[in-house]
Amino acid sequence: MCKACDYTIHGHHHYGWDHSIPPAQTVAPGSRVHFQCLDSSAGQLTRESTVADVATLDFGKINPVTGPVYIDGAEPGDVLKITLEQFHPSGFGWTANIPGFGLLADQFKDPHLKVWDYDPDTLAPSLFSDIARVPLKPFAGTIGLAPAESGLHSVVPPRRMGGNLDIRDLSVGSVLYLPVEVAGGLFSVGDTHAAQGDGEVCGTAIESPMDVELTLDLIKQEKLDFPRFSTPGPVTRHLDAKGYEVTTGIGSDLMEGAKNAVSGMIDLLGKQHGLSAEDAYLLCSVAGDLRISEIVDMPNWVVSFYFPRVVFE
Amino acid sequence: MCKACDYTIHGHHHYGWDHSIPPAQTVAPGSRVHFQCLDSSAGQLTRESTVADVATLDFGKINPVTGPVYIDGAEPGDVLKITLEQFHPSGFGWTANIPGFGLLADQFKDPHLKVWDYDPDTLAPSLFSDIARVPLKPFAGTIGLAPAESGLHSVVPPRRMGGNLDIRDLSVGSVLYLPVEVAGGLFSVGDTHAAQGDGEVCGTAIESPMDVELTLDLIKQEKLDFPRFSTPGPVTRHLDAKGYEVTTGIGSDLMEGAKNAVSGMIDLLGKQHGLSAEDAYLLCSVAGDLRISEIVDMPNWVVSFYFPRVVFE
Repeated sequence: MCKACDYTIHGHHHYGWDHSIPPAQTVAPGSRVHFQCLDSSAGQLTRESTVADVATLDFGKINPVTGPVYIDGAEPGDVLKITLEQFHPSGFGWTANIPGFGLLADQFKDPHLKVWDYDPDTLAPSLFSDIARVPLKPFAGTIGLAPAESGLHSVVPPRRMGGNLDIRDLSVGSVLYLPVEVAGGLFSVGDTHAAQGDGEVCGTAIESPMDVELTLDLIKQEKLDFPRFSTPGPVTRHLDAKGYEVTTGIGSDLMEGAKNAVSGMIDLLGKQHGLSAEDAYLLCSVAGDLRISEIVDMPNWVVSFYFPRVVFE
Repeated sequence: MCKACDYTIHGHHHYGWDHSIPPAQTVAPGSRVHFQCLDSSAGQLTRESTVADVATLDFGKINPVTGPVYIDGAEPGDVLKITLEQFHPSGFGWTANIPGFGLLADQFKDPHLKVWDYDPDTLAPSLFSDIARVPLKPFAGTIGLAPAESGLHSVVPPRRMGGNLDIRDLSVGSVLYLPVEVAGGLFSVGDTHAAQGDGEVCGTAIESPMDVELTLDLIKQEKLDFPRFSTPGPVTRHLDAKGYEVTTGIGSDLMEGAKNAVSGMIDLLGKQHGLSAEDAYLLCSVAGDLRISEIVDMPNWVVSFYFPRVVFE
């Protein structure tokens, strides 16, 4: 399946981070590894799922990651350099509003589900409600290392060793740097997405099972407080050709500003395209971007939500 | 100077927002107006200025705006539609760290100044320290309407009627919508910038005196909670060709995350390019972008700072 890969990891899925989980594989620095990743529901949601299945999700099985991989010679204080070589998308995905989860959980209390069927070869924009087409850009939502602190740690919050970063631009060709906290680093990856906007505002992306190939390298003893990465080129050209509609939220709290900006966009999409609020919320999550326009004009900051017009053109 | 314009406003600069300031001009909806705008120091900083001049700035004269313009027929509840038609940059600009101001004011306590000399016709990227070239994209930092509440209101914080929005993409061709709170709207514009990144992290952009042409239209009685705008096309293509270096800040507070992401980039630029922390901070402000990568993976959010590699290539 991956002739260039030194190893394939499949079937080794774990739920949460714990440095006592035995490695699925030990690899030398410089190895290219193929990971078979489940979607973030661990297969609970399928092409045949309905909104009723969202309400009964087993949260104990949410967000499995594949691994861990022990990198020979990795020690606390080192940095793991991860090159994202290739994604093998499945063609199936889902986006849901899960009650209690998401930026506007207070407003959107009922489950909502969109099942996606996309072409894994062409990655042509995927249809939503017949009126919108969402450009795709596969990436790994959860990618990280085991923490030094003993015990099982929830997979939901990202940490300084990475994890559930949900950074849209961790796509093909990007290089991610993560601080190592335990011997071997103990690298895992999963929660693959076919598309997402900056913010992942409804709480889910186009959640999609996918295989991932990546190269694991080691940089010895280098200071790194938080993950950093580099992209091989532009990051929004799949989205930006037709420009953006932008809403803002202004005030002294960035979280409140983000909520206002996204609420404003949901209203605007409803008005301009007749979308239901629930559909607009999901569409914002998979295609729109949260940016901080200014963070210095005391005491009010401007958070902006950019929705690409290409989705409707 | 502007043959297509119906009016030219010059010399009518005011400091702060106050609906009792007499209009400089009354115009019909649909009018195209030419505004002569000062830089945000109101001419206190010039091509010959040194860092000593930053320390003695008179803050009573900060951020003058040109106007106000009374739009005939505008009433509270209406929306003013502003089309940004053209900018006439001056070729001079400055960027400063002003003590007490900026995202990292706690770390950067001393004044710092960079004076820019750019080609106002070609808008070719402007040199910084001989090793960096900053792409330019002129826009209006402060653009807004008078508030309903009586009295003089500081120009520094942006509000729902706009003001010191510092939104980088309010550049040529963008269309801005602002809620009207008083009769005539009382529109003013100023604080023109030759370039800025999302966030304006050090507190200043490439502050640059510039004339602005725009068309003022009226939409009667439309709900609008906060400013919104549309862009005529892509917004980062002047920056993105070579990809980005990206640092992150992860935690439960977006402001802290933003600070950590920018601090990480200042460290990285120092390491990769030998820049002083002060220079890197200014460069981040004029060329780097703050984005919210995820805002839903409780309790930790990811704020990312994107620095375009084209600046060094």
